[in-house]
Amino acid sequence: MNKRIPVAVLGATGAVGQRFVSLLADHPWFEVVALTGSERSAGQHYGEVVQWILPEEIPSKVGPLLVRSSEEDPGDVPLVFSALPSSVAHEVEPRLAKEGYVVCSNASALRMEPDVPMLIPEVNPEHLALIDLQRTKRNGNGFVVTSPNCATTGIAIPLKALHDAFGLEKVHAVTLQAVSGAGYPGIAVLDIHDNVIPFIKGEEEKVEQEPRKLLGKIVNDQLQMASFTVSAQVHRVPVSDGHLAALSIGFSRKASLEEARSVLTGFRAPETVRSLPSAPEKPLILREEIDRPQPRLDRTAQDGMAVVLGRLQPCPVLDLKLVSLVHNTLRGAASGSILNAELIVAQGYLGESD
Amino acid sequence: MNKRIPVAVLGATGAVGQRFVSLLADHPWFEVVALTGSERSAGQHYGEVVQWILPEEIPSKVGPLLVRSSEEDPGDVPLVFSALPSSVAHEVEPRLAKEGYVVCSNASALRMEPDVPMLIPEVNPEHLALIDLQRTKRNGNGFVVTSPNCATTGIAIPLKALHDAFGLEKVHAVTLQAVSGAGYPGIAVLDIHDNVIPFIKGEEEKVEQEPRKLLGKIVNDQLQMASFTVSAQVHRVPVSDGHLAALSIGFSRKASLEEARSVLTGFRAPETVRSLPSAPEKPLILREEIDRPQPRLDRTAQDGMAVVLGRLQPCPVLDLKLVSLVHNTLRGAASGSILNAELIVAQGYLGESD
Amino acid sequence: MNKRIPVAVLGATGAVGQRFVSLLADHPWFEVVALTGSERSAGQHYGEVVQWILPEEIPSKVGPLLVRSSEEDPGDVPLVFSALPSSVAHEVEPRLAKEGYVVCSNASALRMEPDVPMLIPEVNPEHLALIDLQRTKRNGNGFVVTSPNCATTGIAIPLKALHDAFGLEKVHAVTLQAVSGAGYPGIAVLDIHDNVIPFIKGEEEKVEQEPRKLLGKIVNDQLQMASFTVSAQVHRVPVSDGHLAALSIGFSRKASLEEARSVLTGFRAPETVRSLPSAPEKPLILREEIDRPQPRLDRTAQDGMAVVLGRLQPCPVLDLKLVSLVHNTLRGAASGSILNAELIVAQGYLGESD
Amino acid sequence: MNKRIPVAVLGATGAVGQRFVSLLADHPWFEVVALTGSERSAGQHYGEVVQWILPEEIPSKVGPLLVRSSEEDPGDVPLVFSALPSSVAHEVEPRLAKEGYVVCSNASALRMEPDVPMLIPEVNPEHLALIDLQRTKRNGNGFVVTSPNCATTGIAIPLKALHDAFGLEKVHAVTLQAVSGAGYPGIAVLDIHDNVIPFIKGEEEKVEQEPRKLLGKIVNDQLQMASFTVSAQVHRVPVSDGHLAALSIGFSRKASLEEARSVLTGFRAPETVRSLPSAPEKPLILREEIDRPQPRLDRTAQDGMAVVLGRLQPCPVLDLKLVSLVHNTLRGAASGSILNAELIVAQGYLGESD
Repeated sequence: MNKRIPVAVLGATGAVGQRFVSLLADHPWFEVVALTGSERSAGQHYGEVVQWILPEEIPSKVGPLLVRSSEEDPGDVPLVFSALPSSVAHEVEPRLAKEGYVVCSNASALRMEPDVPMLIPEVNPEHLALIDLQRTKRNGNGFVVTSPNCATTGIAIPLKALHDAFGLEKVHAVTLQAVSGAGYPGIAVLDIHDNVIPFIKGEEEKVEQEPRKLLGKIVNDQLQMASFTVSAQVHRVPVSDGHLAALSIGFSRKASLEEARSVLTGFRAPETVRSLPSAPEKPLILREEIDRPQPRLDRTAQDGMAVVLGRLQPCPVLDLKLVSLVHNTLRGAASGSILNAELIVAQGYLGESD
Repeated sequence: MNKRIPVAVLGATGAVGQRFVSLLADHPWFEVVALTGSERSAGQHYGEVVQWILPEEIPSKVGPLLVRSSEEDPGDVPLVFSALPSSVAHEVEPRLAKEGYVVCSNASALRMEPDVPMLIPEVNPEHLALIDLQRTKRNGNGFVVTSPNCATTGIAIPLKALHDAFGLEKVHAVTLQAVSGAGYPGIAVLDIHDNVIPFIKGEEEKVEQEPRKLLGKIVNDQLQMASFTVSAQVHRVPVSDGHLAALSIGFSRKASLEEARSVLTGFRAPETVRSLPSAPEKPLILREEIDRPQPRLDRTAQDGMAVVLGRLQPCPVLDLKLVSLVHNTLRGAASGSILNAELIVAQGYLGESD
Repeated sequence: MNKRIPVAVLGATGAVGQRFVSLLADHPWFEVVALTGSERSAGQHYGEVVQWILPEEIPSKVGPLLVRSSEEDPGDVPLVFSALPSSVAHEVEPRLAKEGYVVCSNASALRMEPDVPMLIPEVNPEHLALIDLQRTKRNGNGFVVTSPNCATTGIAIPLKALHDAFGLEKVHAVTLQAVSGAGYPGIAVLDIHDNVIPFIKGEEEKVEQEPRKLLGKIVNDQLQMASFTVSAQVHRVPVSDGHLAALSIGFSRKASLEEARSVLTGFRAPETVRSLPSAPEKPLILREEIDRPQPRLDRTAQDGMAVVLGRLQPCPVLDLKLVSLVHNTLRGAASGSILNAELIVAQGYLGESD
Repeated sequence: MNKRIPVAVLGATGAVGQRFVSLLADHPWFEVVALTGSERSAGQHYGEVVQWILPEEIPSKVGPLLVRSSEEDPGDVPLVFSALPSSVAHEVEPRLAKEGYVVCSNASALRMEPDVPMLIPEVNPEHLALIDLQRTKRNGNGFVVTSPNCATTGIAIPLKALHDAFGLEKVHAVTLQAVSGAGYPGIAVLDIHDNVIPFIKGEEEKVEQEPRKLLGKIVNDQLQMASFTVSAQVHRVPVSDGHLAALSIGFSRKASLEEARSVLTGFRAPETVRSLPSAPEKPLILREEIDRPQPRLDRTAQDGMAVVLGRLQPCPVLDLKLVSLVHNTLRGAASGSILNAELIVAQGYLGESD
């Protein structure tokens, strides 16, 4: 691939938008050539209007770009990454898809739509088949592919491995989520300093529903949700990055601790996924130390693309307990969407209907 | 009661020991006249040797007291509060009981002994009946009464109310515990800053076992453990005080959300307990706001003696979900033990065999 | 005083406004009967519209009050406490004064006006004489008295003691300020988590100018600024409450360490101030421990009304170094203004021109 | 350089020791082949005995190495990096130097010895000339070169630039230091959570003395301390890494803001230093944003080897104010010592007397 594919980042001034901009700076396939933001930012240079919150500098080629309004056309690019607020995404993303853009979105707006793939390449690459359904149904050249919620991502990858092996019946998930998940400015320090907040708007519903779509099957070109039940209790904790989930799981087939360990450590992505530029060597890392995973120590494993597991033990109430950790703004947001885009390109979905 | 009962605090230089000293400074019934500490502290003035970590000053009458070694006799007092490390308590507490002292202990050493009451006055005051068994069995004039683990306390009080009403079958408990629970110096800041640790030594076992003893019944003078199952996953979070627990509960009898709400808000201690100096007006407070309880806002409710509940909702996996919060060094440690001592005195157990 | 004086709190939904509401709940002289807030809050019950951030509950008599718009008249009260944003205060406070209200303000809007007393009762009670000048000049029955900036307050009280004794020439002040000083919602957690911000808008100017007015003299009915020089470097640190200042001071008269110690520990308010309900017994506490003052341990000394000092030592560059600590939302804001109001009442300025 | 120089890390299990191990894993010139630790660790595999606190994994070649006692000989290596506690370093480092080892030390034990270079390659590379004096005086083949205190480092580099240009007379330095500076386990979370501690043992003395040695001159083969005066007030703040210093400086020659800006931005290391593997392109970065430098955003600039400056402004009390930031465990400790070792090798001091 000699020439990089020009892309736009929608909602580029927010926390996830900044991650997109930073991660794409040296991407081998994609090049950021356009940015959108709120009306307030439109018409100004990105470097002047963004409240940049990452330690690395604004990429030198991106700083001078003029920000467009997110309501407008993102320009002459085949693919856009969307970090739009869900309320805006709800209207903008389908319109862009109709106009021919391929939209890789982090927004929750369209995630549960039956014709929109909610994709984790290691989990459900076959869901890209929904793209044809979507194009037909919505009569567009482009399409939308979404990433799941950041907390869902850290849960769904281990669940995928265990579901294939033992059949999920019941999942109890208690999350301890980082403050960066609320975006920027997001949470006031006075609300979370020396504190835990046992509530995140809409989050428990997402964690209870999204894994069932992710682990669903395509049957007769339609997505069939998986049938297990998830119960979620979510918490915001004073940690910068890294969502932890305490999982307790009941299976339909008996699973010994050793079998579960073997399934989790042996889990690999399909070959097509493994060779993508952003794919981690191992999507799951199982740590055997008694006190891991920990956000500070484990969130950046494999460039923040690995889900790190630990505390694997039998559960006296259901069958198995474990703890999982995901970097919420990398694997759980920007990097995850970039991996999605890589799979879309590799599978030939970009420009195929041109 | 014109004259206050002289008491000693064992392990008085530690975090919980300091809480005892501070709380007892103005107690209407008890007066601290003796203190013990490690060999290193023995023979020195408390005010000079303690690394005091509370915002209030060291009580002026206690600062000048000479610290005794915890290995020695605590002096001429009928009752001692023990904040000893469990390894020391294991040997010292039974010996003191044998020598005639009434020992109100926070240590875990003897908690699960069948003849030692593990007491929360609002939950199981009738377990004090085990004192006779203990005196007989151990051939002592004194006796030991323990407090449960701090995390257990915040879970056991709501479970008591629900167990009486609906019969507990299964409890899934995920805790988010404050750093003060590890004592002082306890946790290194580098370990917990911007981090969560999904492990506390021995804690999951305690949270899984202790509620079954607390809700057990005295049958033929023996304690019979309750038969429900608890599964615990514990976490240390960067919060100073206040243990949160996300609970999911399965009942043997059907419980509507309304019935559960009514049971929790209507829960009161027996009359004998309610009139004790340290008893909260309401041991359980159920908050209806969508984002409560929160450690920073709710841990000091009713002087840190109330367990604050919230997020009551149906659980798709078991029956009911809720979140509970306890102040771990007050209700869950020093204040809890003081309330125990008050009940012991009120019930006439102090000095009765003299 | 049988009947309490009815008062209003302006800007009652903000962080300082809430402190006013909470502190005045049991005040012996004042009773909150009216509240104002933004247009958005106006017409709603305070308890429903305020995002309450304090651990104590909303006072039961205040929760049901209807919030008025801060643009409107605060109702039939002789005295109002203003926690208005400075931009609003700039217009509202002079208008209310003109209409006859006594305004005790925390806002910076009018602080440096030559006819408006900026008051710390222990420092410059004689500045209340400016009230007559103000009434004349502005042709109003009421008047405005302001509190200094919260960081200034912790610096000005020890400076007063030292200025009287040794004559200030140069003051170098580096502050480490708590996040509550930025109000609510104030600072985004992502900006201050694991971080320090070496800038607070307008703060260095305030810390450099305000002490010179506070320590100024009334000469021929006019305020004459003190002539020393202050250099300030301010920082926001991840601490909830309590502003620390590292001070280095040069004097016009020689001051030994012992003399300075004696001056600071001997400092007392005038008798008229000492008897006010909110006055601390000692406005300055000098701690001799090598590692004090500390925000967590010392900010609530004397109900948060004492400025706590420590680390007194010679300075090789100027003359004397020390560290001071003030509770920024109590002494440095709401409690400070309440003490101001108490002095105003005690001196007979309330209603005197009726 | 085909073959890497074998080196040992002394005190390898501590916080700075771990940084050495991690940083040297891929170093082009050095290879860790030996490690020392306390008696307790000696004889065990490093990977099993170290309480590893860094996010990156223990280097695979180092984990299996056997830890030697720090009291013993570190083995057959020409150069050792010392992260020993100062009390141990005091005895061990001179002995090793005498035995022929080149010791690059972080410990404070020998820093102020007149024949021991305290080195920052960008500041005083010519101080390596003291090595000959040291060898003669101490009659050893090896020698000790130390790094300054971590807080000193962030102050001394900008002072060097300004001293050369304008002549330092007076420096007032107030530091806000990260918790990692206290090592591991270091500070108890209960001491620093939601707090600032205005004291670090021995630190103010170091910050007041060390810059005068660093900016001193070699005259007649002897080091002559620079003659300016430093006054320091140090604070520990709840930040993981990155020491901030608020500096106020008085010069002997007049310095306009523009001249100072030009001097700071134009500062470069000598050519010999610039080409070393660990040397930053620019040792000083001056940020023009009003709210920088910030530890979270700026501490890793140039792999943590740049000192980042900001808030440059005139000082009403002295001449110039600015804020500087240094990564205390990289530039201020392990990376700084590695750069020292690189200069020692490049200048031919390694093995020269063999």
